[in-house]
Amino acid sequence: MTDGASLRPLEIAVAEPERQDAFLRFIGRIHTPWPERRDCPNRGNAEDGPPCRIELFPPWDRALEGVEGLEWLQVLYWMHLSRRDLVLQNPRFSDQLVGTFAIRSPVRPNPIALSDVRLLEVKGRELVVRGLDCVAGTPLLDIKPVTARER
Amino acid sequence: MTDGASLRPLEIAVAEPERQDAFLRFIGRIHTPWPERRDCPNRGNAEDGPPCRIELFPPWDRALEGVEGLEWLQVLYWMHLSRRDLVLQNPRFSDQLVGTFAIRSPVRPNPIALSDVRLLEVKGRELVVRGLDCVAGTPLLDIKPVTARER
Repeated sequence: MTDGASLRPLEIAVAEPERQDAFLRFIGRIHTPWPERRDCPNRGNAEDGPPCRIELFPPWDRALEGVEGLEWLQVLYWMHLSRRDLVLQNPRFSDQLVGTFAIRSPVRPNPIALSDVRLLEVKGRELVVRGLDCVAGTPLLDIKPVTARER
Repeated sequence: MTDGASLRPLEIAVAEPERQDAFLRFIGRIHTPWPERRDCPNRGNAEDGPPCRIELFPPWDRALEGVEGLEWLQVLYWMHLSRRDLVLQNPRFSDQLVGTFAIRSPVRPNPIALSDVRLLEVKGRELVVRGLDCVAGTPLLDIKPVTARER
């Protein structure tokens, strides 16, 4: 993935607008076995992937009430290592460019990712889940229940 | 939904941390038939819901390249009317409280929502889609393709 400073052939970066329209609070931190981006799987596996820990920062741990009864959760996190200025990307180092909104690359104007995970255990202000694919230390943005209609 | 200043019985608000850990850029605006939150459907309907328009702001419209071939999109948006400080909520005005992470209420520490929508048409820097449920003027955060595995 195009995470670093360098562009792949033909890729188009835009001048990033100065605006900061809203702010996010990191409400926790995700602990995975992958210390670097290059170690991460392409996609989490909620059946066979390794257990990962989601740590909630106070006071947001109080909002976990009722989560322990759920099997599936949707985890939103912030891809803090990703650049944000590419509009056309070259995901396969080919001569084919594709628009950022037509691919699920981490490089996006607002690098928010989401994964559906299976909840294994709630331990105080930590969740143990299966199905993540992000780098160790990734900032947590939100946790939502997955409704039947969404699976 | 608990969007205004008032709390429902038993609800718990926390002192919001001062931290602003990351910032978002609003990359567009969503045009729907619902001028107020109370007019919105509980959930978008990608089969029978009304067509809605997603307007991209320059320079992000260039990132739409390739989107026109997709049937399903995941739209991420910012629920700008929602308070962010509730950890325990009373969604049914009952005597039962539930943690914010156990429900899909718009009231969350980072009020990011997502909807799967069906793409009807691309018109320049606007998309016409079916399946949204948000108020007119909602800020757009991201558009991602929906992969087969997710539906």
